[in-house]
Amino acid sequence: MQTVRLSELGEFDLIRRLTSGLETRVDVVVSVGDDAAVLEPVAGEHLVATIDAQVEGRHFLLSASSPEAIGHKALAVNLSDIAAMGATPKWALISLLTPTDTTVSIIDGVYRGLRELARRFDVAIVGGNVSSTDGPLTIDVALLGQVVSGRTLLRSGARVGDAVLVTGALGAAAAGVLTLSSPPHGTGPLDAAPVRQARDAMERPWPLVREGEALARTGSVTAMLDVSDGLAADLAHLCAASGVGAVLDASAIPIHPAAFAVARAYHRDPLGLALTGGEDYQLLFTAPPEDVSRIRETLIACGCASTLIGEIREALAGVTIRGGDGALTPLEPKGWDHLRQRPATRTEGI
Amino acid sequence: MQTVRLSELGEFDLIRRLTSGLETRVDVVVSVGDDAAVLEPVAGEHLVATIDAQVEGRHFLLSASSPEAIGHKALAVNLSDIAAMGATPKWALISLLTPTDTTVSIIDGVYRGLRELARRFDVAIVGGNVSSTDGPLTIDVALLGQVVSGRTLLRSGARVGDAVLVTGALGAAAAGVLTLSSPPHGTGPLDAAPVRQARDAMERPWPLVREGEALARTGSVTAMLDVSDGLAADLAHLCAASGVGAVLDASAIPIHPAAFAVARAYHRDPLGLALTGGEDYQLLFTAPPEDVSRIRETLIACGCASTLIGEIREALAGVTIRGGDGALTPLEPKGWDHLRQRPATRTEGI
Repeated sequence: MQTVRLSELGEFDLIRRLTSGLETRVDVVVSVGDDAAVLEPVAGEHLVATIDAQVEGRHFLLSASSPEAIGHKALAVNLSDIAAMGATPKWALISLLTPTDTTVSIIDGVYRGLRELARRFDVAIVGGNVSSTDGPLTIDVALLGQVVSGRTLLRSGARVGDAVLVTGALGAAAAGVLTLSSPPHGTGPLDAAPVRQARDAMERPWPLVREGEALARTGSVTAMLDVSDGLAADLAHLCAASGVGAVLDASAIPIHPAAFAVARAYHRDPLGLALTGGEDYQLLFTAPPEDVSRIRETLIACGCASTLIGEIREALAGVTIRGGDGALTPLEPKGWDHLRQRPATRTEGI
Repeated sequence: MQTVRLSELGEFDLIRRLTSGLETRVDVVVSVGDDAAVLEPVAGEHLVATIDAQVEGRHFLLSASSPEAIGHKALAVNLSDIAAMGATPKWALISLLTPTDTTVSIIDGVYRGLRELARRFDVAIVGGNVSSTDGPLTIDVALLGQVVSGRTLLRSGARVGDAVLVTGALGAAAAGVLTLSSPPHGTGPLDAAPVRQARDAMERPWPLVREGEALARTGSVTAMLDVSDGLAADLAHLCAASGVGAVLDASAIPIHPAAFAVARAYHRDPLGLALTGGEDYQLLFTAPPEDVSRIRETLIACGCASTLIGEIREALAGVTIRGGDGALTPLEPKGWDHLRQRPATRTEGI
């Protein structure tokens, strides 16, 4: 085992290995395994904390994205994790790892993107670190938020019979990644509009911070996470944490129009992009069926659409998807494995 | 300016550029510019937060250090920042950036080092992130601590007439770096013991967490930081933040015995190592002269020596050092510039 390389072990097995048996403290409410850690420095107030990196060549390409978009995304993915806890993001720390031949112009742009998004959500950048590296430009963001203790939304609260809902529409960011390659021969021209929308979804995800706070305030949401690995993988995370199964209705899954257009040009299944593409940063959540209408109205008041896409079942039923013919098939929890550099076959959140 | 490369701009000018005019929040007590940010999520309780990275080829060499020592140091440098605020470290987030061909054995070792030191100070590792990179192994640690609001020790509270003290002895870590190169010809053999001590100081710095808490409890310390850039540079940081000057007594500066032995073998000035070597992770602090005896006794009860090395003066007096002949010379605030890869000529903390 000792000489095994990380590319063979894979991301999720490594995380399991590193986090098993971690020491805790009495003021740690939730450690690794949710979108963010939940801490209780003072009774009644939860502090939520998360960290995530954007690495050139892995999460972005300087040749394809503007520096502003890179900065935006570095903060957005962390804001989305805080939103998924129902918390209010407040303070960020930025660790910048940069090759010494990077131009000031690029770093200025990255910081403009970070600061502009921070301003939008009243987040203060309170500290950081700059270090040179022989490797690619990397932006590591640690983000802290706050929430009244009773309102924190974990992955682990889903109950049998709960409705499964998702905000917005899925598959656009994955479609954006598709557009970076050439479309196959024999396909007609692809309109500029869906390409632009798909690239924008990929490069500048919008974190649903106000929507997450509103969902926490309803008092009805039983479990929540953000869709970063892909709907199928993230639903599997939620079900595993809650000890339940689920059935999704294939025809109900909201597919982004840009994902439809791009998928057609690339001979790909749009539903596949929506289920396994990932990086959607929508909120996936569960609630008792009788509260669904009220919750959806709350989201509409935030300007956010949501869709009822399935139901929570017993764990033994597994996580399945109901096709047009009514038949249930197991939903493969495919996501992206950063260490193998290919889709993951097993998934577990950190 | 836009096409200027970071290697030309330098670390401290870049930090100034990135942090000027940062938006803040009412619950931010101290933003960038001290060892850690100070936040007030709830009245009366300060949360302190810091982030720092260790990069292969910059901060450590896998060929020279054990994975355990690398993990130890990645947490230790952050613990030292929290200690320098007089706070108690509590929760850590780890962002691991790793080449895919890294062996599991190395990552296991890094985590053993992290976890062992976390256990020693009752710090919980509550979250993290793993990402692959085409660059060097990098461990980014964000660390949070707590302190009662009235006790937080900033860099900015030094007053004219205060005594300047430093814990422990200086120069050993810089001597450890020296021992990685071959000694010049014509020098006698260097004993194994000082080499081992110097390397150990370089690889496994011990953060003065209990000492920092004890100093905060005295209620007498007016300003504090940890010596990471070097005594001369860090005293300049403290003086700049407090709007004061200082005079150091060259003969009083505690030089580590290993620094003496190594400096002799390498024809280097041991006082130079102590003043500008850096990475000592001792605590540099100021206090009214009448409280010095009581403070030093408090530290002795923690098993920690401290030395009176100077006095705070008016800002106009500058930061100077008094030599054996009684003459005052300006103290060059030399430290390390990570982006230029050479000693910095101007220094300012983040």
